[in-house]
Amino acid sequence: MHSIFEYQQFISDYLQEQYEEKEPRNLYEPIHYILKLGGKRMRPVLTLMSAEVFDVDYKKALPAALAVEVFHNFSLIHDDIMDAAPLRRGNETVHEKWDINTGILSGDAMLILAYQYFERYEPAIFKDLAKLFSKTALEVCEGQQWDVDFEIREDVTIPEYLKMIQYKTAVLVGAAMKMGAIIAETSTENANLIYDFGLNLGLAFQLQDDYLDAFGDPETFGKQVGGDIIENKKTYLYLKAIEFASPSDKLQLNQLFSIHLEDNFEKINTVKNIFNTSGASSATKQAIQDYTFKAFETLQKINIDNTKKDKLKSFGENLMARKV
Amino acid sequence: MHSIFEYQQFISDYLQEQYEEKEPRNLYEPIHYILKLGGKRMRPVLTLMSAEVFDVDYKKALPAALAVEVFHNFSLIHDDIMDAAPLRRGNETVHEKWDINTGILSGDAMLILAYQYFERYEPAIFKDLAKLFSKTALEVCEGQQWDVDFEIREDVTIPEYLKMIQYKTAVLVGAAMKMGAIIAETSTENANLIYDFGLNLGLAFQLQDDYLDAFGDPETFGKQVGGDIIENKKTYLYLKAIEFASPSDKLQLNQLFSIHLEDNFEKINTVKNIFNTSGASSATKQAIQDYTFKAFETLQKINIDNTKKDKLKSFGENLMARKV
Repeated sequence: MHSIFEYQQFISDYLQEQYEEKEPRNLYEPIHYILKLGGKRMRPVLTLMSAEVFDVDYKKALPAALAVEVFHNFSLIHDDIMDAAPLRRGNETVHEKWDINTGILSGDAMLILAYQYFERYEPAIFKDLAKLFSKTALEVCEGQQWDVDFEIREDVTIPEYLKMIQYKTAVLVGAAMKMGAIIAETSTENANLIYDFGLNLGLAFQLQDDYLDAFGDPETFGKQVGGDIIENKKTYLYLKAIEFASPSDKLQLNQLFSIHLEDNFEKINTVKNIFNTSGASSATKQAIQDYTFKAFETLQKINIDNTKKDKLKSFGENLMARKV
Repeated sequence: MHSIFEYQQFISDYLQEQYEEKEPRNLYEPIHYILKLGGKRMRPVLTLMSAEVFDVDYKKALPAALAVEVFHNFSLIHDDIMDAAPLRRGNETVHEKWDINTGILSGDAMLILAYQYFERYEPAIFKDLAKLFSKTALEVCEGQQWDVDFEIREDVTIPEYLKMIQYKTAVLVGAAMKMGAIIAETSTENANLIYDFGLNLGLAFQLQDDYLDAFGDPETFGKQVGGDIIENKKTYLYLKAIEFASPSDKLQLNQLFSIHLEDNFEKINTVKNIFNTSGASSATKQAIQDYTFKAFETLQKINIDNTKKDKLKSFGENLMARKV
């Protein structure tokens, strides 16, 4: 097996190899643009790792890994339109650099291109991959819809929130890993276990994202600290604070999450304070630990060498120790 | 084989059968809404016909037929957003009835749902269908992009225009028919011939759409006659008129296609007059005939009974005799 850094390199080399200048340029340029913005490439790295965990050369998993990455970037383009987001990874979003129509159509093309990468596999594997991919992609759409719905709902419960982040984020992490297992033609049991490992890791990852958005170190955190608070986003931290806070704190939190301010310095400090005193912060840290632990427990049941389990565990530990 | 009317009924019954109430409602309701608006269901009808032409029960082709119809409606939702169209089949478009974000996301889900219908076939057929579908879907996106690009270009040529309508409209008609052939497991030669039959019929169909938009009978034509002229759309009629018209008519046409008016009565009459006197109208009618003839010629080469050829021919003749 290789290091994370090597897997990232394999993916970016393979992406480069696949590049071809295609017409119409207004359709394909935005696709090349967003794919070149990079990012951690966490999902495709997991597909390659998973293939090697089950004793197949990572090269065989490259097309599926790229399908996952292309799909993920499709969802970013369309989500950024829906959120009217100006920036992605520090650069202009596609609909900002071009326009909304370009974002819609280039996104559509990426969803189709993702399916085309699976054509490199023989029919039985192709069908297993495409089926898993369709199921997952539809869940991601459902998760996005729940997220949109929750913006105007005042009664979102913790189980509903967890289901939303599971669909919107975690299922793709699980699927990315299961694809490696499908390509390696390991047992169905192994494939399902690695899916669960990825799913729980994905949940821990998203909850940590919520946590870092409020409590990340401004020096190392890539985004603006407090962004979710500024936008009144009902994250796990917020929902737990509403559950735990004193009546007066709850009232203040509700009030602060119903307004949009020019200067958010005070708001961020007050809200973070309530997150801490209410116990919402510790509850979130606990949930991150619980899901990580659940992922590692699942890992133990997979029928592979211990050295490989250690590799996956260390990937998970690295991910959870991240500050960005 | 059955009548067009029966095939339409089979599709609408099958669509009804597949219906299930799914959450989140804001994602799935727009999908049910647009699918229920109906339309001629020309594409899925052709998939069923094609399967029976190659001696397989239409029932076996129903999932693929529905995939084609769901994809077609996905493309309508996203195109209507891009064109800011308020109406579709006399009803509110999805982005008008809900909003743009809903149109984007429900459309995305439909593209994925289309792929899922192919899962009803065994792996080898599944792969053939999904491959053809992806290739076609990507071409439809490319055609839509060319269409958008042409809006601001002044130098669109006839071959470019024909390529655009081929991608945007005709390839899906060809693919709908080839799917029937794939499901029937006929020879590759037959499958390619029926694709070409559909492709040429699709080209004739789109050119006729251009023609009827200007010269259709207001009594029977479903849409507003002259709609393309009002919107300054560079159709085949327009491009041929620019090619053939006298310098002064060409100047007037260019001028009329650079303005937007409140009252379009005069503009429509003047433009139609130029279309007629320049010879653009006859050239368009000729092109429709040529593509129809090409379709029928291809039909003769397919290795099937003459009675079946007659069935397909009569479908084509009906389509070309339409006034709506």
